[in-house]
Amino acid sequence: MNKIRIAINGYGNLGKGIEKEITKSEDMELVAIFTRRDPNTISNISDVPVISINEIENWKDKIDVVIMCGGSATDLPVQVPQMSKIFNTVDSFDTHARIPEHFAKVNESALNSKKTSVISGGWDPGMFSVMRVYADAILSNGKTYTFWGRGVSQGHSDAIRRINGVKDARQYTIPIEDAMERVRAGENPNLTAREKHLRECYVVAEEGADLERIEKEIKTMPNYFDEYDTTVNFISEEELKANHNKLPHGGFVIHSGETGEGNKEIIEYSLKLDSNPEFTSSVLIALARATYRMNQAGQYGAKTILDIPPALLSKKSPEELRKELL
Amino acid sequence: MNKIRIAINGYGNLGKGIEKEITKSEDMELVAIFTRRDPNTISNISDVPVISINEIENWKDKIDVVIMCGGSATDLPVQVPQMSKIFNTVDSFDTHARIPEHFAKVNESALNSKKTSVISGGWDPGMFSVMRVYADAILSNGKTYTFWGRGVSQGHSDAIRRINGVKDARQYTIPIEDAMERVRAGENPNLTAREKHLRECYVVAEEGADLERIEKEIKTMPNYFDEYDTTVNFISEEELKANHNKLPHGGFVIHSGETGEGNKEIIEYSLKLDSNPEFTSSVLIALARATYRMNQAGQYGAKTILDIPPALLSKKSPEELRKELL
Repeated sequence: MNKIRIAINGYGNLGKGIEKEITKSEDMELVAIFTRRDPNTISNISDVPVISINEIENWKDKIDVVIMCGGSATDLPVQVPQMSKIFNTVDSFDTHARIPEHFAKVNESALNSKKTSVISGGWDPGMFSVMRVYADAILSNGKTYTFWGRGVSQGHSDAIRRINGVKDARQYTIPIEDAMERVRAGENPNLTAREKHLRECYVVAEEGADLERIEKEIKTMPNYFDEYDTTVNFISEEELKANHNKLPHGGFVIHSGETGEGNKEIIEYSLKLDSNPEFTSSVLIALARATYRMNQAGQYGAKTILDIPPALLSKKSPEELRKELL
Repeated sequence: MNKIRIAINGYGNLGKGIEKEITKSEDMELVAIFTRRDPNTISNISDVPVISINEIENWKDKIDVVIMCGGSATDLPVQVPQMSKIFNTVDSFDTHARIPEHFAKVNESALNSKKTSVISGGWDPGMFSVMRVYADAILSNGKTYTFWGRGVSQGHSDAIRRINGVKDARQYTIPIEDAMERVRAGENPNLTAREKHLRECYVVAEEGADLERIEKEIKTMPNYFDEYDTTVNFISEEELKANHNKLPHGGFVIHSGETGEGNKEIIEYSLKLDSNPEFTSSVLIALARATYRMNQAGQYGAKTILDIPPALLSKKSPEELRKELL
């Protein structure tokens, strides 16, 4: 069997995760890592070549799927519609409000080129989306709740770092246990942002910085913190490095519905992840397998994980799956 | 929009569940209930006609999907291959070991007739299978554990009822919390049947029956009880009716895998169901929607839930799903 040839575009946390995790898929091989930086400045984990993104067109016939590892804010909205003119792609675009727009652009480009592009993969959007759709399809009179954490929110950590006088920071999103218990009990409560999650911040301040001001700026920051109960802990740089150097995350999708005469049915899906980027990478790799198979089957255009049969993500054959896992 | 026209074949717990739950799907309508009993002896909940199964061929053009509500032991293996010669079908065949054989027979029949037949729907096989496949596809170096309960096992309850001197019985399958905690901690333990589940029996004995013998026969029954720690409680018929008249069930699929250098990633899916047959019905109804859509798209033959994109189960459009649930 020919292996599915994968390339990585963008070598940050996610790109590194793909490079590590893809070794677990015997049916795939990593053939190149593309970067917009000078390739000579990058020392990667494996012996896969690091190539300038400007040369990617020369790899047209050597790659089956490009996994796009840029950011959602400015990279992916531009890069994916372009890349899907030449390659099948998988991305983890996660700005929920802009997904319809991203889908439309990528769909147009991929349909034109007869490529297949899976957008918004990972765990949310991604596996959590799948769980919301199944639950809503089965118990359509019910209500779905998504809780995140305990885990590091990179967006919120970045927001703190932008405050004057802050040297470094980590923000943990923490789901409120009491709210989850009410949902699990089938209460179907209306919950505000404050009732669902706490925000816990660990901040390294610059020497002589006004801590009171920093704390106030964090707690009142619109969208990010003002609607939550937030705690701010000032710590040393050493402590941050020693105790907060990982990127754990996870969360819960809980759906509660009713059948018959008041019978409660509760569906719950949860993830507890030591490494958010490595788990996200693992999902994207499985999606790359499905992307390749859909393209082979003539299913072109933009797709999401909601459009993909679960079996297509597995390296096992349909016969094996029916025998072993059904 | 034309509604998807559904028929029920077999009017037991599951058939009744379908009849109740289908009212929540505005895009579907129940048109008939078929039975092998005398239709005049059946009083159903809704005003849908109850018809003899011998007349079902006359309904060829009036039904889009038949939901097969017979048992897995003797009904479905015979009925589904026959029915799929004329109709799209959905069934809940749950004898795991015989799924490949059932699939092959139904596939042959449905391919011939250009019908679509989804086999082995429900929650296990069904939603639990989906969870096992996703987890194994994402973290293929990990291990998946399935725990069932706390809930009534109808197969085990029936087995007790067949013992001489037993008037009625209910058997609860109970997952062992300590084993689940070890799995959640990422230990990947090897667990025996006895270490995973307890079996709790409530038995109504006939007057004058030898209770000691009954208890011994239960506890030593091969396959059903001999490999488990089993408790037997003799109770009155009144108590059974008052406290054990429901069919709750549920369970857990827990997958633990590793990424990178020793990072643990835990995926868990759980169901907590007040009514096993009503929840199973809700899954079958969503699958009937997908069955109809696949048939319309020319996807003939036998399918399982693993072959179906999650979006096909939902009454929402792909656009709505991307906007609201992705």
